[in-house]
Amino acid sequence: MQQGEHITRRELLGWIGKTAGAAAMYRAMTSLSLAAESTFDASYQLSQAPKGSSILILGAGVAGMTAAYELRKAGYKVRILEYNNRAGGRCWTIRGGDTFTELGGATQHCQFEDGGYLNPGPWRIPYHHRAILHYCHKFGVKLEGFVQVNYNAYVHSTQAFGGKPQRYRAIQSDYQGHVGELLSKCIQQGALDQELTSEDAQRLLESLRDWGALDKNQQYKRSLESSLRRGFAVHPGGGLMPEREPSEPLDFSALLESQLWRSIAQGQMDDHQTQIFQPVGGMDGVAKGFERQVKDLITYQAKVTRIQQSDQGVTVTYDDLSSGQSQTAQADYCICTLPLSILSQIPLDAGGPMQAAIRAVPSNAAVKFGLQFKRRFWEQDEAIYGGISYTDLPIRNIAYPNYDFGSSGKGVLLGGYIWGAPNGFEFTSMTPAQRVAKAVEMGAKIHPQYLQEFDNGIAVGWHRVPWSHGCCGVWTQESRAAHYNNLCQIDGRIVLAGEHASYLNAWQEGAILSALDASKRLHQHILASKEAA
Amino acid sequence: MQQGEHITRRELLGWIGKTAGAAAMYRAMTSLSLAAESTFDASYQLSQAPKGSSILILGAGVAGMTAAYELRKAGYKVRILEYNNRAGGRCWTIRGGDTFTELGGATQHCQFEDGGYLNPGPWRIPYHHRAILHYCHKFGVKLEGFVQVNYNAYVHSTQAFGGKPQRYRAIQSDYQGHVGELLSKCIQQGALDQELTSEDAQRLLESLRDWGALDKNQQYKRSLESSLRRGFAVHPGGGLMPEREPSEPLDFSALLESQLWRSIAQGQMDDHQTQIFQPVGGMDGVAKGFERQVKDLITYQAKVTRIQQSDQGVTVTYDDLSSGQSQTAQADYCICTLPLSILSQIPLDAGGPMQAAIRAVPSNAAVKFGLQFKRRFWEQDEAIYGGISYTDLPIRNIAYPNYDFGSSGKGVLLGGYIWGAPNGFEFTSMTPAQRVAKAVEMGAKIHPQYLQEFDNGIAVGWHRVPWSHGCCGVWTQESRAAHYNNLCQIDGRIVLAGEHASYLNAWQEGAILSALDASKRLHQHILASKEAA
Repeated sequence: MQQGEHITRRELLGWIGKTAGAAAMYRAMTSLSLAAESTFDASYQLSQAPKGSSILILGAGVAGMTAAYELRKAGYKVRILEYNNRAGGRCWTIRGGDTFTELGGATQHCQFEDGGYLNPGPWRIPYHHRAILHYCHKFGVKLEGFVQVNYNAYVHSTQAFGGKPQRYRAIQSDYQGHVGELLSKCIQQGALDQELTSEDAQRLLESLRDWGALDKNQQYKRSLESSLRRGFAVHPGGGLMPEREPSEPLDFSALLESQLWRSIAQGQMDDHQTQIFQPVGGMDGVAKGFERQVKDLITYQAKVTRIQQSDQGVTVTYDDLSSGQSQTAQADYCICTLPLSILSQIPLDAGGPMQAAIRAVPSNAAVKFGLQFKRRFWEQDEAIYGGISYTDLPIRNIAYPNYDFGSSGKGVLLGGYIWGAPNGFEFTSMTPAQRVAKAVEMGAKIHPQYLQEFDNGIAVGWHRVPWSHGCCGVWTQESRAAHYNNLCQIDGRIVLAGEHASYLNAWQEGAILSALDASKRLHQHILASKEAA
Repeated sequence: MQQGEHITRRELLGWIGKTAGAAAMYRAMTSLSLAAESTFDASYQLSQAPKGSSILILGAGVAGMTAAYELRKAGYKVRILEYNNRAGGRCWTIRGGDTFTELGGATQHCQFEDGGYLNPGPWRIPYHHRAILHYCHKFGVKLEGFVQVNYNAYVHSTQAFGGKPQRYRAIQSDYQGHVGELLSKCIQQGALDQELTSEDAQRLLESLRDWGALDKNQQYKRSLESSLRRGFAVHPGGGLMPEREPSEPLDFSALLESQLWRSIAQGQMDDHQTQIFQPVGGMDGVAKGFERQVKDLITYQAKVTRIQQSDQGVTVTYDDLSSGQSQTAQADYCICTLPLSILSQIPLDAGGPMQAAIRAVPSNAAVKFGLQFKRRFWEQDEAIYGGISYTDLPIRNIAYPNYDFGSSGKGVLLGGYIWGAPNGFEFTSMTPAQRVAKAVEMGAKIHPQYLQEFDNGIAVGWHRVPWSHGCCGVWTQESRAAHYNNLCQIDGRIVLAGEHASYLNAWQEGAILSALDASKRLHQHILASKEAA
């Protein structure tokens, strides 16, 4: 400990071992090496690039900007071509005053009040997405909590409970309670005598009471215990207010038939578990964080039309959308992060395996709706602060703003998040106004206030987004086996990156990890080529 | 709809009924009257007070300030006597630069860096605590999410798994998965044929697969499904990174024996469910919000020493702590919000039933620790952002800051939250430095980094807090039955309020609801007395 603050890891472990014993040392080692469970290495750093080597990056999304940032740091001459006049790609936020023209020509002018926004693409960052969190911290991107699960939000089925939305807390609590009661019954009847020792059976019964909110007879019913989960019919109050009254659980058979249990494990999925984040003010906070680092490298409004390579280098032809003129850019190597739905339409010098892989991955359909209302009725009337309601209607989700809780002005919510066929295509084929009208009509089945409070809205159908033609790459087990490795291999002087070139499709983490991996392999390839030359 | 934005509720319902049918109307009615499930009425407003009537309030905590705010609005002449030189009472935040002297004379000087803080008292606000949320919104108290459940935080038992902390996500997922597998077995063996129709049995099996992360054979084991809950041994990555590897669930018998399941339902309790809040910057944001409204009514540093009443009015004697002189204050009526642990030591003119009630409610022991570390190792090393780790050690909890995620400076966490006897008394009897040292020693069993990274700390033992002598009122079923009504009745010209006079003990919501109820009853009593006179 003599070195004080400059103690090394080895010294620390030695000191803990001496003073606290082997068990503490073991825990310390496990703890300090926990990053091992992530595929991200926070100490990622490329060695020195060969002098004068240049790399052209296609696409200034988070994949392209990650590669640009790390490769420039290593000493490469880097340039990025970007279709839009902003960085970020699908890491994108629409606010009041923004305009968006989709394929087909329809233009939407967003009329949200200051502060409201829609993230048409990614909208959340899980705690174990260590690569994007690393860069957020490094680039000063301020994060706040994203509410995935809200116990007071709704789960809704048009086919159940007369179409009346149920509170998440009631469905979650009642499902778990009934399961706990049924399993208790089996244990008490001896049905698990072969599976459990009598000691374990007793422990399981005790734990089911605690976990399932069962009463002392192992039953889940109208009681203090169950109401402390599902909520009271009359809440406890102060002074001489009316006394609290327990609420009545749902009939289990009706609950099973309702299928509403489908929504209750959402927040337990590793991608949705707490703590999960959103950037303060909109997801493009991430894009802007990266852009601050590499803005000088980006040529905006450059629509790539051809990608050629030879033994000497790479030549990319692009349309300068501001002047309408065709231009070319040259470099020694190229990292292409264009979505495969775009890349598959561009002449590309690459071998058969990569070409086949590019064509093997369709793009998912998705539609997101941003709806502004005259007031935050979901908070004021229904005590729903943030989080998500689930429905079997095509809109699937209604997600409430996770910021400015309790504010008195207008409010913007996510009026729907359609994922995949057929609804994704159905809604994309509508005009923006039709999409919004449908989302309002459907949302009103859950929140009747929609009809009175609706102000204005926008809707992005990803297959009509000119620079992505879809939302994200869709792999199957079969296409992975046949094509994934071919997609990711360096082909001559070109390597691909992006969420599609990862096991974390549709996530920014996948885009960044893919860019880090592609950059590293390309760098090693360049070093090896120089040595061989 | 002719009236546009000024449409009445009745018109709206009529319009929905006509255009959307009866079901929509039913839902609208249910939705608009949802506040009925809360004991708080947002339209609370007292009628005009009799001219010149005065009310003296003892204690400027949230109960006292709520009463003062509403009674002044009704036209009463209001004055508050407060022991401290700040408002809020137990709604209190300690920051760097603050000094606190406890009973026994020990003084702590908080040395936290800017931004770090400890809330020694309340630290969270549930979504269904509508009264406090109402005033927060009204008084401009900015709220942010409180993280109750963090799937990546630890659950820890000194008696299980060799003392090695387990991740919450592993325990939660494995418990639920094993329960799902066991219940599936029972169903498949016909053990529940008397309980379930065959249709329900099939639905239950299907739901258990989804909810329990079971494989297609209804088993919970090392698999993609279970790893998507409990986490992977190797996470999915990008490009040609190593492929993901599923993780191995814990043995169910070991899990049952570990008792770690005791912590996994915490976030399902209605008081802990999402969405749950904390004021930005510290809980005293609530105190300051109220104080902005009633500051002109408060006499600070006034230690109440006697409470007298007669047919003519109330006289309260107090020590002015700034001058050391004894003073008196008079009013027509009095609302006393002093903690019962204090009130029971003060001569009070009240009848036997109220006196007995005051003495029937002991005060809970609690200790909270604020520990500053040189860096946020819990985020940087372990990807724990906010939330709570649970342990069977006396410190019980380690709670990580739910703000400034990813910041690079020093960090303050809650190093323990001891609740009740015997540990509450044991730690309160120590010196502050001993308390902090113990919390560091114990916390190091979960986070070995404590030993290297600890910077400084403070610890508040509530029985040594001069103005509360404990943390909150403790009711039993028996004492409620015998004394609660007597405690809350108006005794002559005096009525009590505070969390102790509510069914929501230890919660600010209880204090506010109690104050609203006491104010309303006192107001009605005063009006009735005037009429009778």
